Amino acid sequence: MTLQRLKHYGWGREGEGLSPEEEAFVLDRHRRRFAVGHFEERVPPALADLRLRRPRLAPPASVATFCVSESYDRAAHTYGKSFLDYARGLAGDYASAPDVVAYPRDETEVKAVLDWAGGAQATVTPFGGGSSVVGGVEPVCDDARHKGAISLDLRHLDRVLEIDRASRAARVQAGVFGPALEEQLKPHGLTLRHFPQSFTYSTLGGWIATRSGGHFASLYTHIDEFVESLRVITPAGVVATRRLPGSGAGPNPDRLFIGSEGILGVITEAWMRLQDRPRFRAGSAVHFADFFTAARAVRALAQSGLNPANCRILDPREAYNTGAGDGSSAVMVLAFESGDHPVDPWMRRALECCADHGGRPEAAEGVDAHREGAAGLWRTAFIRMPYARELLIRRAIISDTFETAITWDRFEAFHDQVKAATEAGIRAATGRAGEVTCRFTHVYPDGPAPYFSFHALGRHGELQAQWRVIKQAASDAVIAGGGTITHHHAVGREHRPWYDAERPPLFAAALAAAKLALDPQGLLNPGVLIDA
Amino acid sequence: MTLQRLKHYGWGREGEGLSPEEEAFVLDRHRRRFAVGHFEERVPPALADLRLRRPRLAPPASVATFCVSESYDRAAHTYGKSFLDYARGLAGDYASAPDVVAYPRDETEVKAVLDWAGGAQATVTPFGGGSSVVGGVEPVCDDARHKGAISLDLRHLDRVLEIDRASRAARVQAGVFGPALEEQLKPHGLTLRHFPQSFTYSTLGGWIATRSGGHFASLYTHIDEFVESLRVITPAGVVATRRLPGSGAGPNPDRLFIGSEGILGVITEAWMRLQDRPRFRAGSAVHFADFFTAARAVRALAQSGLNPANCRILDPREAYNTGAGDGSSAVMVLAFESGDHPVDPWMRRALECCADHGGRPEAAEGVDAHREGAAGLWRTAFIRMPYARELLIRRAIISDTFETAITWDRFEAFHDQVKAATEAGIRAATGRAGEVTCRFTHVYPDGPAPYFSFHALGRHGELQAQWRVIKQAASDAVIAGGGTITHHHAVGREHRPWYDAERPPLFAAALAAAKLALDPQGLLNPGVLIDA
Repeated sequence: MTLQRLKHYGWGREGEGLSPEEEAFVLDRHRRRFAVGHFEERVPPALADLRLRRPRLAPPASVATFCVSESYDRAAHTYGKSFLDYARGLAGDYASAPDVVAYPRDETEVKAVLDWAGGAQATVTPFGGGSSVVGGVEPVCDDARHKGAISLDLRHLDRVLEIDRASRAARVQAGVFGPALEEQLKPHGLTLRHFPQSFTYSTLGGWIATRSGGHFASLYTHIDEFVESLRVITPAGVVATRRLPGSGAGPNPDRLFIGSEGILGVITEAWMRLQDRPRFRAGSAVHFADFFTAARAVRALAQSGLNPANCRILDPREAYNTGAGDGSSAVMVLAFESGDHPVDPWMRRALECCADHGGRPEAAEGVDAHREGAAGLWRTAFIRMPYARELLIRRAIISDTFETAITWDRFEAFHDQVKAATEAGIRAATGRAGEVTCRFTHVYPDGPAPYFSFHALGRHGELQAQWRVIKQAASDAVIAGGGTITHHHAVGREHRPWYDAERPPLFAAALAAAKLALDPQGLLNPGVLIDA
Repeated sequence: MTLQRLKHYGWGREGEGLSPEEEAFVLDRHRRRFAVGHFEERVPPALADLRLRRPRLAPPASVATFCVSESYDRAAHTYGKSFLDYARGLAGDYASAPDVVAYPRDETEVKAVLDWAGGAQATVTPFGGGSSVVGGVEPVCDDARHKGAISLDLRHLDRVLEIDRASRAARVQAGVFGPALEEQLKPHGLTLRHFPQSFTYSTLGGWIATRSGGHFASLYTHIDEFVESLRVITPAGVVATRRLPGSGAGPNPDRLFIGSEGILGVITEAWMRLQDRPRFRAGSAVHFADFFTAARAVRALAQSGLNPANCRILDPREAYNTGAGDGSSAVMVLAFESGDHPVDPWMRRALECCADHGGRPEAAEGVDAHREGAAGLWRTAFIRMPYARELLIRRAIISDTFETAITWDRFEAFHDQVKAATEAGIRAATGRAGEVTCRFTHVYPDGPAPYFSFHALGRHGELQAQWRVIKQAASDAVIAGGGTITHHHAVGREHRPWYDAERPPLFAAALAAAKLALDPQGLLNPGVLIDA
């Protein structure tokens, strides 16, 4: 199957988007929310109308066969998918377009790019699938220090190289997209079962570099635990960690690169821990009187040792907005799965925990309940949601999300403070009320990962400034309340001020020292995570 | 209860040791093994007979109230509990005794020690409980670079400072020993349930610094996952990480210090994730035809998602040596536990997995089976074993253990190669056959953590050299076969050659750069993990 090329602006591939019915549903919700009949609409410039500056770099023979400076490639590698990215794209601002996009076909060519960049004093930004929502893939280039910017796209490193069925592990090239990875694993009865919302348009290397959050609501929340070993190409040479099920030999070397967001090296391969394909399932949507009551049930489940595969809760408005509820109750999407044994005893005990907090399961409880009823409606909305964003910003609707994690003792007050601060930010930025809703994406015995969505009606020409006011209000509250600036969206450049407040200063010093050892010229993704 | 002081030589506190019956059992096994009627016995020198060099450091007023240079303190802080430590102690070699032992009572005093050490150019070695079996707590001092050595003992930082019942977490000072920690948690219905073999004589800070392996055979194998946040005093200042249930904000800062073995800073406090005390249990010993068959059952269990609390196997000889078997079968010690729900469905399915591989459960299956039958016998032997070592070396018996981890695809060949290499090492070193046995201490979906014990009859005066020949043969085989040089014993100084081979050279460069940022004078535990 030949795939359409990725959009240079917007989510997914060319030709994809919401259906007319989905679009009508989403716009209707927003019209009611803001009590307006009509949105002023602006249209992003066509590719042919973009004015990109003349490339400052000319690829030498060593890399010329896989380097491109066409407008499409440069435009499609200028941004990720953050609100600021969409706003700048809508305004036709492509000032930070890379001079060159490199599409290496093997590790030798990755090395050749780094060598060339070192000689040319060019920055190198690993692109992954480009789904960053935090400014993590923008090929920023400080003219005082660098003479050009290269975006590094590993899409050709897309193969599963080796399968170890006994250990349930595979050696995989880092540029593979989610669907192509699962397709190659399927004949072996294996699966990674790591399904971030961006699954279709993000890569294994990107997941590892950003500590992506996946399918499992508990236990294996981030990609971290699935990494058995790594190969990373740094300007100083190759880092290849040993394939081990576990070790206590010094600080874990993989953990330095997991979450390093492209500043230490380029992840080219990983041995990944896999799962058997699930054969047994049980699931249900469970309704609760309110969000905090649902959260108490989640806490009981998270501390039960049952380790549900899914255990996500939506507040009543979030349930309503996604079509998963009527707005009168909080909804939990609960599921167990196993490749080994029936999970009914697990499900029964989980529903007892829910009942202790007044949780009422939907009738649809059963094997495929996760695809039906409220759970199924939410699941569809979850997958389709990213397509709405390019539609909404054209109408000056500021619709965005942020996520965090917090210990249980502080959760309720924290939730209320963050929500109130974000609502106040919306009023301050736009002069009218918006909406802030919350769900849990992942849970731990010691606390949840709350995920907030907000909607505000902005004004064209002011969208970036308005978004910044709201983002600052929300992020300040997250940090002041003891949360993390990101549970699984990464830091990039947009979260830097709050990451700097969250992270111990001496850890930053240690990380900067490590970077200097691996990337002495400071070529890799400058400005992400640390100044360098 | 007033505790006796720790022995300056040997395991545990003064007055403790094997009972006459235990001693007779152990010596009888060794007489039969080596077919000798009598062992030549040497006795370690009494404390009063040790000749320690005159201290090179004089504590200034800022630290004098909690610093000691008495012979007992210096001798008791010279070594950990490795074979080489015992051999040197037996020979009366205390050349690396610290000049001063510091017993700070709070964090301010820890800082005062580091400040003094910086000015005096003295090394600082965090002692933990002193149970290191890898040369990790010896206060080594390179006379060309340093003017003295300080052993830092945090035993007075022994309190649980704060409990968060909702999040099931506690803020704990790092110098607390295992029993005192559990005693303080018990009134709250909580437990860390981290029970390394050294539990009674090791500290929370030591567990974290060495990535200690604990009670749980699967899932929560190392202390790593229980660390919610850390406070670390470095020569450059304090590192305090944020208390979070999970985060994706850059490389995990805690993971840089977990396993740092005292080279980056002194861990003074941690927020630890706790468990409810188990109310439901099911367990049994299960017998298998041989070790590899038992291992295949372990693999099925490790990949089942059942996550047993205990799932350890002993090869037939190991079972025989510990009194847990008659030598005709391999033994699995299997157990589930929960503070939330009956675990019978888990146990039933686990026994099915065992039956698939011919596993026959003992009659004693049931709630307290882990304290009865073969499982109970092995458990007692496990806890008492360390007391035997000081007894055996007096008789020139080289009895030691080493442990590793390996993926399942390579396990069987790896086991045979490592065992054969160690047996060959014993013959080369001692001129006669010894014995090498194996068990699994922890298991992962992608591989086991095999733990080898070996027994050789050496000669007084040559014990260190003989041990080195065996250790080298075993460790070379571990590294050549793709294993890790340590799953949970840490690296220290004794594992350095093989750790250096295992770890990517550029990770060492990054770690050294991080150390330089935090400990610019190289005061902290020099020679452990990296040269510095």
